[in-house]
Amino acid sequence: MPIITDQDIDDLAVGAALLGTGGGGDPYIGKLLAKAAIEEYGPVELLALEDVPDGVAVVACGAMGAPTILIEKIPSGDEIGLSLDAYEDHTGGKAGAIIPFEAGGINSMIPIALAARRRLPVIDADGMGRAFPQLEMETFHVYGVPASPVAIADEQGNRVLIETNDAAKAEWYARGVTIRMGGQSYIVNYGMNGRTAKRVSVPATMSLAIGIGRTLREAAAGHRDPVSALVDFFAGTHYGHAEVIASGKIVDVARKEENGWSVGVATVEPFDPARPTVKIRIQNENLIAEEDAGRVLAIVPDLITVLDLDTAEAITTERLRYGQRVNVLAVRVPPIMRTPEALAVFGPAAFGLKQPYSPLGHGDD
Amino acid sequence: MPIITDQDIDDLAVGAALLGTGGGGDPYIGKLLAKAAIEEYGPVELLALEDVPDGVAVVACGAMGAPTILIEKIPSGDEIGLSLDAYEDHTGGKAGAIIPFEAGGINSMIPIALAARRRLPVIDADGMGRAFPQLEMETFHVYGVPASPVAIADEQGNRVLIETNDAAKAEWYARGVTIRMGGQSYIVNYGMNGRTAKRVSVPATMSLAIGIGRTLREAAAGHRDPVSALVDFFAGTHYGHAEVIASGKIVDVARKEENGWSVGVATVEPFDPARPTVKIRIQNENLIAEEDAGRVLAIVPDLITVLDLDTAEAITTERLRYGQRVNVLAVRVPPIMRTPEALAVFGPAAFGLKQPYSPLGHGDD
Repeated sequence: MPIITDQDIDDLAVGAALLGTGGGGDPYIGKLLAKAAIEEYGPVELLALEDVPDGVAVVACGAMGAPTILIEKIPSGDEIGLSLDAYEDHTGGKAGAIIPFEAGGINSMIPIALAARRRLPVIDADGMGRAFPQLEMETFHVYGVPASPVAIADEQGNRVLIETNDAAKAEWYARGVTIRMGGQSYIVNYGMNGRTAKRVSVPATMSLAIGIGRTLREAAAGHRDPVSALVDFFAGTHYGHAEVIASGKIVDVARKEENGWSVGVATVEPFDPARPTVKIRIQNENLIAEEDAGRVLAIVPDLITVLDLDTAEAITTERLRYGQRVNVLAVRVPPIMRTPEALAVFGPAAFGLKQPYSPLGHGDD
Repeated sequence: MPIITDQDIDDLAVGAALLGTGGGGDPYIGKLLAKAAIEEYGPVELLALEDVPDGVAVVACGAMGAPTILIEKIPSGDEIGLSLDAYEDHTGGKAGAIIPFEAGGINSMIPIALAARRRLPVIDADGMGRAFPQLEMETFHVYGVPASPVAIADEQGNRVLIETNDAAKAEWYARGVTIRMGGQSYIVNYGMNGRTAKRVSVPATMSLAIGIGRTLREAAAGHRDPVSALVDFFAGTHYGHAEVIASGKIVDVARKEENGWSVGVATVEPFDPARPTVKIRIQNENLIAEEDAGRVLAIVPDLITVLDLDTAEAITTERLRYGQRVNVLAVRVPPIMRTPEALAVFGPAAFGLKQPYSPLGHGDD
């Protein structure tokens, strides 16, 4: 069973940023946490989803809150352990494996830090296949795993447990508590057994993120065009299809805080003057990319990530600036994220978008 | 051991409104709940604080939230039982007696409803000796009982448990959750044994409230002046001293919602034109009564309650209106609520008042 190497973590940080689709938090601080935990407690095994024993007790984990606050309240790495303590105290069981609830952004790293401390494996899968802004936007929830109990802890050891049979309420209460914990908390929930995890998880997303980072690293070393290397890489995965939907210059970024969300629009002026302007609508993550006339190029849950033109490294929404030269990469999500049940939870309508979901490059899978 | 009668509950509603010092919520809905629970489950015993067995497991309970919401979300009576279920599930123990965390306002009734359902006694004592707006403003907290764990439930069976060693944070998180539960929740916390309860509670406050109601009822029957009957009644209790600090007409009520508080000033123009105008400052409860020139007539934690001139029934702050003819009654709190430790938690400074605490009628106890 593969061990997560130091190189893997560097690659994972790059790939998780891309899966963050503009949000999810910069994995950099998480990378430091994961490396520090491995150094102190020893290596972490990445357990393929199909190898998870049916009877093992799996819990999901990650951080909740505004990524910008994480930079001011840098975690020690103990916080997520406090949350697992609270979860285990409450349920009376012991976790046997950790699954990330979100492979995009910083939440790709938190589970590794926890797994190192607890000497548990991390499952190579997650519940979002990308980043999403809410706790109920999980394939775990879509396919019937209760979101509750939710254990929440902060860096001071304050702990809150939520029990509800409504996943949206679990999110609502947890968000309220997180705000009152200073805007950042650490969550353990979605307890399930291994058999269920195999049914409800987006497989191989941690190795996907590592593969994204490795692809970019190798492209740089081999002087290969990084974005075309990425498109080729995705073609060989169960995501299957990725394409550059725009290449150009950021000519406008309108962004504001609204109801706790970072909401805005980024405008990309294509290098090719014959092509129409592309607008990307943002609510924490990039939700939809459309041409001025309204033609939709890509829409949530498919991934839309703005990449630096030269390095193909992901640019998070808060770092978008006028004048940046970018490729906009879109990636189709795997089938488990495109069912009617899944789209009801994290499809366009869940974000208030009127446009229907249409899978990127549809027809070719 | 005395059983709480139907008449007691009517009297308690009247007395708890007075102990509410303008806030605490109208006990009327609570009265209906308590009566319905007794009718369905049988009588409830009121257990004198000194008779509580040392080893019995005591829990405090009450409702949290805006009293105005209670009128829209009328409780079924099950809610507080759901909260005790959550508390017991979490701690692994069973409650043996119920103590009100607040004898003022509606929270005098919630414990009776719970006790009837669980066939447990209610202790004749509380943690506030009146109404206060926050969960940490408890003699339980003042004298060392942890506020946590806090069990919170709503009418839909959603449950939240808070664990923190900081009572102010327990309040802060519980308030946030309560807001997200729609503004009303049911709380069980301050678990302690009987021996501790005897040390940290304000004694005989439930029978005090019942006695207030009885005094007014008997005064009405005997055509006696109700407010002087009240002053006499308090003289015979461990509160010891009450006095009418103003008699006059409400000539102004300025009130607004601020940070979740109902904040305002009520102005009383005395009937005696030789006497100065009195202003009562309100933050949910009546906090301070002072003359125009600044002389303080009464200040928190002492009770300040506006009474109807004719009936001496308490008028809550939200029912104060221009033109009402009133007596303003002040009551000194018992010694356990006047120690430096107690004043640090619910004295004037805790409400942002600059004036120091000076016990009403000081010198005579």
